Amino acid sequence: MNDFTLEKSDFGPGGARAGVLKTTHGEIRTPVFMPVGTQATVKATLPTTLKDLGAQIILGNTYHLYMRPGHQLIKAAGGLHKFMAWDGPILTDSGGFQVFSLAKLRKITQEGVSFQSHIDGSKHMLSPELSIEIQEALGSDIMMCFDECPALPADRSTIKKSMELTLDWEKRSLAAKTREDNKLFAIIQGGDQHDLRKECTERLLEIESQSDKKFGGYAIGGLSVGEPNQVMYDVVQNLSPHMPEDRPRYLMGVGTPEDLVTCVGLGVDMFDCVMPTRNARNGMLFTSTGNVKIKQARYREDFEPLDADCSCYTCQNFSRAYLRHVYVADEMIASILNTIHNLHYFLTLLGHCRQSLLDGRFEEFQKEFFSRRSG
Amino acid sequence: MNDFTLEKSDFGPGGARAGVLKTTHGEIRTPVFMPVGTQATVKATLPTTLKDLGAQIILGNTYHLYMRPGHQLIKAAGGLHKFMAWDGPILTDSGGFQVFSLAKLRKITQEGVSFQSHIDGSKHMLSPELSIEIQEALGSDIMMCFDECPALPADRSTIKKSMELTLDWEKRSLAAKTREDNKLFAIIQGGDQHDLRKECTERLLEIESQSDKKFGGYAIGGLSVGEPNQVMYDVVQNLSPHMPEDRPRYLMGVGTPEDLVTCVGLGVDMFDCVMPTRNARNGMLFTSTGNVKIKQARYREDFEPLDADCSCYTCQNFSRAYLRHVYVADEMIASILNTIHNLHYFLTLLGHCRQSLLDGRFEEFQKEFFSRRSG
Repeated sequence: MNDFTLEKSDFGPGGARAGVLKTTHGEIRTPVFMPVGTQATVKATLPTTLKDLGAQIILGNTYHLYMRPGHQLIKAAGGLHKFMAWDGPILTDSGGFQVFSLAKLRKITQEGVSFQSHIDGSKHMLSPELSIEIQEALGSDIMMCFDECPALPADRSTIKKSMELTLDWEKRSLAAKTREDNKLFAIIQGGDQHDLRKECTERLLEIESQSDKKFGGYAIGGLSVGEPNQVMYDVVQNLSPHMPEDRPRYLMGVGTPEDLVTCVGLGVDMFDCVMPTRNARNGMLFTSTGNVKIKQARYREDFEPLDADCSCYTCQNFSRAYLRHVYVADEMIASILNTIHNLHYFLTLLGHCRQSLLDGRFEEFQKEFFSRRSG
Repeated sequence: MNDFTLEKSDFGPGGARAGVLKTTHGEIRTPVFMPVGTQATVKATLPTTLKDLGAQIILGNTYHLYMRPGHQLIKAAGGLHKFMAWDGPILTDSGGFQVFSLAKLRKITQEGVSFQSHIDGSKHMLSPELSIEIQEALGSDIMMCFDECPALPADRSTIKKSMELTLDWEKRSLAAKTREDNKLFAIIQGGDQHDLRKECTERLLEIESQSDKKFGGYAIGGLSVGEPNQVMYDVVQNLSPHMPEDRPRYLMGVGTPEDLVTCVGLGVDMFDCVMPTRNARNGMLFTSTGNVKIKQARYREDFEPLDADCSCYTCQNFSRAYLRHVYVADEMIASILNTIHNLHYFLTLLGHCRQSLLDGRFEEFQKEFFSRRSG
């Protein structure tokens, strides 16, 4: 059974496409941006606001939820959807990336990763089997395979070794999946080595061909970890034609509006990133004509909306002067309003990508977008 | 012209009553609780949420807005209503109380108060005339007279001296009022000295009898500043019969749910307090059966709503376990959800007071309220 349907593929195999992904908690129209809800909340945002903004699916972070409040507690609460009052689809990561970036005293073995909590120093061991157990306890609609993700630049032997470990962990992740009402996405690693990326993809297809279970989608992991933009684009462009066309493609942790519009053009269907929400809290706002640092003195008496072309609650009701005032005064409403705007920007941007694909004018849309943003 | 109409006065002159106060930005049904929006925002709350919660009028703090972003900027923005996207009535305080509690190096003269900003140390002088100028620039619907407010306990001569200064400042405040579309409320001082409170009231009535302008309401100031609860109740009870029956009575900076229900019974129409919003951010929540400190371990796996009797968004969608989790994890949604609940609690509490007055069963309501809250 494949729950992903391509509606339009403008540029042939590997090119930009629009699709629909069915999940237990609803359909996702791709390409799609997924807001990040690390600790059972998309920061500074109510679930009802996310719905109003048109968010179709949100992320939860397995590492954070495992550490606090614990997956057993969330399971006892009726699952993550009920716990956080979000009835749409939820994707959870595997916890791997956060173990590598946040936890202390990590030690990697074939079995998994042992580490100490960044909150209270308690000792834990995360393995593919436990990661899937946690994600199933959370009630995730889309789970991710437990993988290792080396920072770039890294030498080829490090990347190769990491990829071999990841492939073993992904095979075990697939074997550990027990529920029927969710999906497990594979993650392609291989750093900036195009042949390793291709090999990783082929071996993941082999893994599922030897299993009675399938991967519900294929993610590109290990990018946006310090490498130049062009390296990322090259990896995606080279890899995309080798990825199975009939599965959703998810570029993990990416990225800027420019990254999203570029990578939709390279055949990516799904994105997640903390950028709209984190930058909102830091006063960095995305608009159709470029980025705005709202604390700048130039906005002190600027009574125009943040983005005259924007239909979000923030732009419809408040001026740049107000947004600057509440940011400078350290008022929580600054984060709330800025998050509404930035999420609206990212979500509608992907909506525009999708519509232009369906209308057969995506290339035109891309050109316009880059021309306005750089102006 | 008097814009205040009594609808029901259950317990004769000085007793509990329900009324309607007309302002340029809409009618206010009393008794009423007014959420505090110090820096042009009710903390952690969108204006649209305040509307949904049934807030009829909010407060702005003159001292804070004068310091930052400045009343001229807000005037240039089209006034405080437009600046903060709140189209309902706004009451502004005079700035006096904050000058005394926040500013540095205060020096009081007959002219006014010179002080240094708590933000940048800049030097300022706030006088009755400037306070009214600022409040009119903000576009306040209900302005407050500039007054001095001594902390309690204080000796009688200090209270008397302060009252004399305040009476001079109130006369000058009334004289300084220029706009026709707003109201100016008098403030009765006199500490815990019942005869001084009565004298202050009579002299304020004299001031307005000698002017072509009227006070739109009478406030009781200088309470909830460190004195025992019973001292406050005694002052209100003794003072209330001497206050003009045909003007709204506003007890400034008060208070707990118990204070509100008690003082409605003593004839007060209007209240403001930071308690629901500030306590929300500190995880202290008000419920029909008592107060809840949400961080307590006992709520860790408590999957019941905060208040089973409450119809607010928070109680309808989230469990105590969730509220505890996001509070402990220091997530902004904790403040947002807690503020929604606490404001809903205070606003509906006053709504219930009003309805029970209209229905002639206020005493019964009071009894039930105290019995449930202490249970």
